[in-house]
Amino acid sequence: MKQYKVGILGATGSVGREMMKILLERDFPVSELHLFASERSAGKVVAWNSKPIQIELAAEDAFEGLDIVLGAAENDVAKQFAPAIVKAGAVFIDNSSAFRLREDVPLVVPEVNAEDVKHHRGIIANPNCSTIIAVTAINALRQLSPIVSMVASTYQAVSGAGAAGPVELSEQVNAVIKGQPVQSKVFPHQIAFNLIPQIGSEQESGYTSEEMKLQYEGRKILHLPEMKVSCTCVRVPVVRSHSISLTLRFEHRPSVYEARRAIQYAPGCKLVDELAEAQYPMPLDTSDQDLVYVGRIRPDLTDDDGLCLWCCGDQIRKGAATNAIQIAELLIDREG
Amino acid sequence: MKQYKVGILGATGSVGREMMKILLERDFPVSELHLFASERSAGKVVAWNSKPIQIELAAEDAFEGLDIVLGAAENDVAKQFAPAIVKAGAVFIDNSSAFRLREDVPLVVPEVNAEDVKHHRGIIANPNCSTIIAVTAINALRQLSPIVSMVASTYQAVSGAGAAGPVELSEQVNAVIKGQPVQSKVFPHQIAFNLIPQIGSEQESGYTSEEMKLQYEGRKILHLPEMKVSCTCVRVPVVRSHSISLTLRFEHRPSVYEARRAIQYAPGCKLVDELAEAQYPMPLDTSDQDLVYVGRIRPDLTDDDGLCLWCCGDQIRKGAATNAIQIAELLIDREG
Repeated sequence: MKQYKVGILGATGSVGREMMKILLERDFPVSELHLFASERSAGKVVAWNSKPIQIELAAEDAFEGLDIVLGAAENDVAKQFAPAIVKAGAVFIDNSSAFRLREDVPLVVPEVNAEDVKHHRGIIANPNCSTIIAVTAINALRQLSPIVSMVASTYQAVSGAGAAGPVELSEQVNAVIKGQPVQSKVFPHQIAFNLIPQIGSEQESGYTSEEMKLQYEGRKILHLPEMKVSCTCVRVPVVRSHSISLTLRFEHRPSVYEARRAIQYAPGCKLVDELAEAQYPMPLDTSDQDLVYVGRIRPDLTDDDGLCLWCCGDQIRKGAATNAIQIAELLIDREG
Repeated sequence: MKQYKVGILGATGSVGREMMKILLERDFPVSELHLFASERSAGKVVAWNSKPIQIELAAEDAFEGLDIVLGAAENDVAKQFAPAIVKAGAVFIDNSSAFRLREDVPLVVPEVNAEDVKHHRGIIANPNCSTIIAVTAINALRQLSPIVSMVASTYQAVSGAGAAGPVELSEQVNAVIKGQPVQSKVFPHQIAFNLIPQIGSEQESGYTSEEMKLQYEGRKILHLPEMKVSCTCVRVPVVRSHSISLTLRFEHRPSVYEARRAIQYAPGCKLVDELAEAQYPMPLDTSDQDLVYVGRIRPDLTDDDGLCLWCCGDQIRKGAATNAIQIAELLIDREG
């Protein structure tokens, strides 16, 4: 079996570290792993697959000879190095939002639109974490009837803000317990024992950048360019796994029975929907694994063509690192 | 000014204790305060208005001579004693859900339907906490155009489950920090660093009892018998104040400007809606006060007649104790 030279750009962040772990877990055929980071981390040595790897400085000439570069860095870093990665002949699978809506860049959730990777020209974008979780949950349903619109309220874990998010939550919880003053650096307000109804910056019509991603990215991934989405994104004091309350409007509503059955057999999904037994998706149960749990499926009481549901998924794994490596697997499947 | 003999049934729970506090805060004209509880608490002495009060055993013959009894007990206790309270000539302002949907019982949020108290026959019901917060938030908007339907996702604090809720959250947080096993007694699952998408028991069509309250009670309070509501109720690891993400459909959508202005002047509401300045309602800010904060007002992108908003309120105060005492104030206003 062919082996691949893989790079991770932004290897020291929470998504980059998870990518390292998942490459091993999924037995991705890696001949060499190169880890790239900024000056702050370059030169440090980390262990991977029981071997030491020295972190390299991300630089224009650093990507020669690589087959695949997984991007786990911020937008500006992704934009800076994408041309060099493509020029070096590697495929750049990028988790930033820099390229997601570009027409010549496929935006892919393998369970939903694997075919789209074919059209790449060197860059494939990994969608927003909440968007991945939502479209994985609803993909089987839109095969029952096209989705016309979607109202979403999210409950997003602090680790969605990077490795510093859980540290800040933990520090704040300790401060509250000890009666000490609480400091907020990562989040705009205290998140311990609180909710912050803002993720991202103000964009259009009073929505945030994070809220608009579900509409724009969802349309592209699902090939539903007319789908309308109203989203409210809320940070909650949960360490890991995003949850979403969804109200979907279909052309013709599937029955709850049909919807449950479709979810039950949907790739990437697990049906957890026994309210009478107190069984439903919860972030604690979906953390550190790759399935999107879906439950609380019931008719929308406000619309004859609507269904409501609740889904949770690990936004660092399926919402970011796992999805990126699944995309890489599609590439090597096509080649192998 | 006339003084009133007031009783509190279920005086030792979190709502009962808050009622004691709010009677003083609002300078309610109390000549005598009688506190009623079960055998477990009867006989104990508590301080109120710098005077000791001995807790009395709730009993059929205990309510003679009282003018107003505030109910802060469970449904079964409310049902047991309501006839005796009414027979004794007192008005029973009950916070349980036992009588809320009975045709001869007004269900009142004073900012919304104060006039309804007129029709009472001895019992006036205090609505569900999330329902009070939601209808207080939207009352000014439905005066701009009738509300046709509402999709709601709630973020409900642990104190909504009574005084034992915050104790359990605190114990669980400490156990998690120390790496000890977590015990759940009040909630069906761990709530520390988790979300539980179930409040109440399974009722109809896959909804919980708590979720259906917003439709049934909302219709009655707002005098909108056709209003359709789809609600998802979620417990979050917040100590106090419920938050709700609302998508409202109107007959004709008001503009965001009109909606903001209406909220700004709405009794019981505070407009907190400056996303660019990171100003929006948050549970930490709305705790221990009586206003419902409303913000994130923006057009529903899925429906030309829809608006989205986010509101928070202290569910023990405005969502329960304060609202009950506001109802009592309506009664004495009418008499005085």
